[in-house]
Amino acid sequence: MSTQSEHPTLLIPGPIEFDDAVLQSMSHYSESHVGPAFVSVFGDVLSDLRKLFQSTDDSAQPFVISGSGTLGWDLVGANLIESGEAALVLGTGYFSDGFADALRVYGADVTELKAPVGSRPQLPEIEAALKAKKYKLLTVTHVDTSTGVLSELRNLSELVHSVSPETLVIVDGVCSVACEEIAFDDWKLDGVVTASQKAIGVPAGLSISFFSGRAIKAIESRKTPPATYYASMMRWLPIMRNYEAKKPSYFATPSPQLIHALHTSLTQILSVPLSERFAKHREASDKIKAAITKMGLNQVASNPDDQAHGMTAIYLPETIQIAQILPSLSKKNIVFAGGIHKEIATKYIRFGHMGVSILEPERGHIERALQSLEEGLAEFGYQKA
Amino acid sequence: MSTQSEHPTLLIPGPIEFDDAVLQSMSHYSESHVGPAFVSVFGDVLSDLRKLFQSTDDSAQPFVISGSGTLGWDLVGANLIESGEAALVLGTGYFSDGFADALRVYGADVTELKAPVGSRPQLPEIEAALKAKKYKLLTVTHVDTSTGVLSELRNLSELVHSVSPETLVIVDGVCSVACEEIAFDDWKLDGVVTASQKAIGVPAGLSISFFSGRAIKAIESRKTPPATYYASMMRWLPIMRNYEAKKPSYFATPSPQLIHALHTSLTQILSVPLSERFAKHREASDKIKAAITKMGLNQVASNPDDQAHGMTAIYLPETIQIAQILPSLSKKNIVFAGGIHKEIATKYIRFGHMGVSILEPERGHIERALQSLEEGLAEFGYQKA
Repeated sequence: MSTQSEHPTLLIPGPIEFDDAVLQSMSHYSESHVGPAFVSVFGDVLSDLRKLFQSTDDSAQPFVISGSGTLGWDLVGANLIESGEAALVLGTGYFSDGFADALRVYGADVTELKAPVGSRPQLPEIEAALKAKKYKLLTVTHVDTSTGVLSELRNLSELVHSVSPETLVIVDGVCSVACEEIAFDDWKLDGVVTASQKAIGVPAGLSISFFSGRAIKAIESRKTPPATYYASMMRWLPIMRNYEAKKPSYFATPSPQLIHALHTSLTQILSVPLSERFAKHREASDKIKAAITKMGLNQVASNPDDQAHGMTAIYLPETIQIAQILPSLSKKNIVFAGGIHKEIATKYIRFGHMGVSILEPERGHIERALQSLEEGLAEFGYQKA
Repeated sequence: MSTQSEHPTLLIPGPIEFDDAVLQSMSHYSESHVGPAFVSVFGDVLSDLRKLFQSTDDSAQPFVISGSGTLGWDLVGANLIESGEAALVLGTGYFSDGFADALRVYGADVTELKAPVGSRPQLPEIEAALKAKKYKLLTVTHVDTSTGVLSELRNLSELVHSVSPETLVIVDGVCSVACEEIAFDDWKLDGVVTASQKAIGVPAGLSISFFSGRAIKAIESRKTPPATYYASMMRWLPIMRNYEAKKPSYFATPSPQLIHALHTSLTQILSVPLSERFAKHREASDKIKAAITKMGLNQVASNPDDQAHGMTAIYLPETIQIAQILPSLSKKNIVFAGGIHKEIATKYIRFGHMGVSILEPERGHIERALQSLEEGLAEFGYQKA
């Protein structure tokens, strides 16, 4: 049974199109948040998240908390850093700026290492920054949803561990988890914060995060208590441990329906090797980017090595406005997003390609989107130079 | 079409049983959080909340934010009080203690005026407390879900306005909004925080709150910025105003599915006069309490005037354990909750009676619950004294 009536195809960088079974789980009958059936499902979700993050380190800890993805920034700011401690934020766009703002709210002494629009800070400058000052943590936005710039994590983390081993490596994975590879243990990451509505494929409403044993220890050895109640990881930690041990536990009421939907989606995700999932996103992305280039369009992420595989940020031809192309696409039942990076917001559009739109090519989402884009541009007189 | 398969009847004080149409809305197809269709629905939800709170004061402001009900405490603690300012918390049980804890996390100087278990602080002692010290705000837990004690708001607010007019009157309405009357403007309240999964009848995952123009002004005139990013009301205020004006706006991604479910439920709630809804909850509650008394059982809320109308906390006979009666009820497909107030947790059970279980008596939930309770007690040898 399909729960989805005819509707425009949503190809923005989140929320994405959802699988029918996931949406069906959203209407699960009401259950007690401390009853054995629900506790078991929540426990399985937490165990499944360990697999999604390719982690077998028992000291690492998944958290699933009701909230927007943004809440992940508060988890980091309120728990992992104390007032006056230094944070190095790798600047890639709107979302790294947001992370920096959130850390400042909690009193962090933030240094933003900003790259030009469409690129990312390079290892030599990061090395120099790490040598110039002692940082409690470094944050990297794995995919900056404002630019489609993909940051490399493995060599970055190796650099941090070599130059400043006490610095925690924190990843904003909102637009990367479940479509870009993240080997949490192997890459020695300390934290990844993400949300449900992107490649994880579940309606918005869940802040999902994963922290290393080292990060948990950093919280446990704070000199001052965290200045938050709801986002206090020490309050959630025993709850998450109990749920995973299938014991009822209460701090704040979780959303059984969203947890059921997450359970359905994670079961689907883990039913095929993760490497296959990442490869499919990569292949589809390569084709999309080739088609965009063939149309004579440029990407905001200028270096092919720095391009995300779950979204593409595309500069419009100078003769065409966002207010022309988005409504034109909409008439063709394709929904793209406008720009959000303040320096270039009016000049580009964003195309999300994650989850079922990639894994079920028979839906035809990507072909229709590319064709609609080409037709839409032609409607307004654009011809490839 | 029913989205609900056979399932145990959930009669805990939240989450409650949900209407089919509300659950169906949870599986709404994916939409852009800034697209016109969703923005319009979110705008209607905010306007409907004004009606639910019986407010026509344009300076008052509804907020709907992804999160558990607990997040409402952070909204108050992080925004309405500054470090070192004083708060008077009326102590009625587990949930007023939680509110006090949350305020302390944000640096409030908290005085808890605690009543004995099963009762609430009385006006003369509240008056004395207000005269003894200047409080930035007073909090009252309208229905303390740990005891089923109902606090009176109208005379309380009148007292505060008369004795200490600058003190903000803040209500924890998690277990009262949409089953107990709240006349926000008439009673001169400054804030009500609640959640989706109780009498509002929507799956958990939304923090819903309503603040007076005076409360908003108090935030705007803070001497220090709020020590929170996600729970910052100043960050959410323009977003909520834009949504209500049906203009797209972004701070953090809301949950379209939960907002659709809230829209469906509020439309149902507002389709009959609120007075009728409250009267039905009151009548049903009176019958339930009479039946409990007839069984020879006592309530935790000892004074009939202080008894909530959406739940009943019931002392077990001394010879019967929670570990006997809850499984016995469960076998009869009735789910009640155990105790949560730490002083009496093992001695009582909680019966939630809100929403469709009351408004659609043809479901037979209440009759089956009372009959199952009586039979369950008899199974373990209980006879009315």
